[in-house]
Amino acid sequence: MKQAPRYYRFSADALHEFTSRVFQALDVPKADADLAADVLSYSDRYGIDSHGVARLDTYCDLLREGMINPKPNHRLVRDRLAAGTLDGDNGMGLVIGPKALHIAQEKATQCGSGMIAVRNSNHFGAAGYYPVKTLERDQIGWAMTNTSRGVVPHWGVERRLGTNPIAIAFPGLAEPPIVIDMSTSVVPYGKIEIAHRKGVSIPARWAITEQGQPTENPLDMMQGGALLPLGTDDEGCGHKGYCLGAMVDILSGPLSGANWGPFVPAFAIGAPTTKEKVGKGIGHFFGAWSIDAFREVEEFKRQIDHWIQTMRATKPQAGKEQVLIPGDPERWAYEERQEHGIPIIQGVLDSLKRISTATSVPVPKYEAV
Amino acid sequence: MKQAPRYYRFSADALHEFTSRVFQALDVPKADADLAADVLSYSDRYGIDSHGVARLDTYCDLLREGMINPKPNHRLVRDRLAAGTLDGDNGMGLVIGPKALHIAQEKATQCGSGMIAVRNSNHFGAAGYYPVKTLERDQIGWAMTNTSRGVVPHWGVERRLGTNPIAIAFPGLAEPPIVIDMSTSVVPYGKIEIAHRKGVSIPARWAITEQGQPTENPLDMMQGGALLPLGTDDEGCGHKGYCLGAMVDILSGPLSGANWGPFVPAFAIGAPTTKEKVGKGIGHFFGAWSIDAFREVEEFKRQIDHWIQTMRATKPQAGKEQVLIPGDPERWAYEERQEHGIPIIQGVLDSLKRISTATSVPVPKYEAV
Repeated sequence: MKQAPRYYRFSADALHEFTSRVFQALDVPKADADLAADVLSYSDRYGIDSHGVARLDTYCDLLREGMINPKPNHRLVRDRLAAGTLDGDNGMGLVIGPKALHIAQEKATQCGSGMIAVRNSNHFGAAGYYPVKTLERDQIGWAMTNTSRGVVPHWGVERRLGTNPIAIAFPGLAEPPIVIDMSTSVVPYGKIEIAHRKGVSIPARWAITEQGQPTENPLDMMQGGALLPLGTDDEGCGHKGYCLGAMVDILSGPLSGANWGPFVPAFAIGAPTTKEKVGKGIGHFFGAWSIDAFREVEEFKRQIDHWIQTMRATKPQAGKEQVLIPGDPERWAYEERQEHGIPIIQGVLDSLKRISTATSVPVPKYEAV
Repeated sequence: MKQAPRYYRFSADALHEFTSRVFQALDVPKADADLAADVLSYSDRYGIDSHGVARLDTYCDLLREGMINPKPNHRLVRDRLAAGTLDGDNGMGLVIGPKALHIAQEKATQCGSGMIAVRNSNHFGAAGYYPVKTLERDQIGWAMTNTSRGVVPHWGVERRLGTNPIAIAFPGLAEPPIVIDMSTSVVPYGKIEIAHRKGVSIPARWAITEQGQPTENPLDMMQGGALLPLGTDDEGCGHKGYCLGAMVDILSGPLSGANWGPFVPAFAIGAPTTKEKVGKGIGHFFGAWSIDAFREVEEFKRQIDHWIQTMRATKPQAGKEQVLIPGDPERWAYEERQEHGIPIIQGVLDSLKRISTATSVPVPKYEAV
């Protein structure tokens, strides 16, 4: 009997083009569609499979249902030399995010630093895209976003905060950049879903049941339970993960005028969401800092190389080969995928075919592996 | 038999004056001595006992031995409209920190945001002092510092990073401010010392032995072991605490030109330190963001009130009364100490007496409790 293929390999460029054409078919202008495709493609190329084309159908649903504005007229509602707030006019986060970052970067070029809060936006893809993009101009980029509720505040048993990621990156000279992109819960929701799909248990430090008990069953979290903040509990100092999630939420929501905490709208149609609104859409917070406003660029990069080499040279734990540098696993995925293409699982392939049927954009050719 | 007093109560103002006069006796100009006393006093008033006058003898040792410059000529070595780098001329961090923050605040008033990296400084006290100070001008303040090595990078068994704290605060209108001040290790070194002094064990998620094994004996950490990053291990996602510690270290060290990682000089005389230098002194990173550069100030504060009320209203875990807001425990300590004064333990009283003898500044009057 022939075994079913484990996955399908696509060319990254072909997936990028497909994504852009799909968005264009849903009334997104070509330049914006290309930008949005850049953001999704970053995830596919760097192995962040939960945030790439696997989510294209959700973005398409929202565009098709008129829940996202395909032609937003975004504008700065506050504009100072080194700071401001952008109203995203309910556009795709994949478009509004890069535009807000660009404004922060222009300010950083002019003044040394630029901070932009964003309201009235939607899911902006993988947070790591933004600081990696910023490196092109020898700037340090910083991206945060609030997301729909899934995480308890420390000592609470109800979902009140999102997984609220923080991302920042630092360029090396001979070494690759250090890239940090982390949710402020112990794990993002995707890890719970993956465990459920595989039928395996989860560590008791990740999530609680609806009654607030630790659980090793992913379904308990998915059916009314919640994720725990980084640090998990009193012993692990879970109040710190809660503090970080709060920081991201407040800079993204109350500061910009977006929704925050339990009021952040859900990403997917039909997902449970709160009717009450305390702001507009979801919020992000971007920073860009010109390295040369602080130090000579090459000097800084040389120090980053030394920093990386110093950490790698640390004596490792028994059973571990080497201390990693933030961004290592994504870079390994990038190198493998540059050579062999992007692996897509059956469920995602099926969703691409549905999108193709609905938009008349042909699915790119692929190879079963 | 008469029981020994548990502690001694001092007036906060009298301790502040004592601190300032002690610094002046060690050649620190009066204005700088007052500033340094403000920073230490913040910790005493808010119950952060590890960072207040309990550390005065260490600062005095360093001044007396000529290891800290009492009259630094700090200067901006890079200066852009909204960013820059301050060289602290090896001054007290308690003086250089507030001055750097002030520069960031001036820039934020002018441009909306101001980011200042600091090199050639020393221990700057409790990180929370800085964002709380920033609130006076309706700005959001952000403070980070690297500290001498005590923490392993995730998967490593050697001390390579400090406990590298992050602090930020947000003002409420009717509600008190949200104040975040957290080390990026599971716990700071002080918690290990306290457990050792009390003769109690520590949770296995806090520290490892010199051989890299989890331990419940605080002495194992103190004698060649290390603290673990927030998240502890693979299951708890300790790579995230490592990422946060790395972020603080890089913004404080390589960006400013200060030492970083294992090269950060030790705070106390005689503490183990690395001879090799990769920069000057220790480093900090400050940010100040004018709230009105993003949103109308009162609107923002009203949202913070709502945020606080929403989190407090979360159904609590069994055995917990209520979800706390970051800054609650410190505010409770503040209120109690406003009424009853600052409690000082025997060992700290003894150190104040030694300082008094050395500087001829009389110890303020106190009451045994």
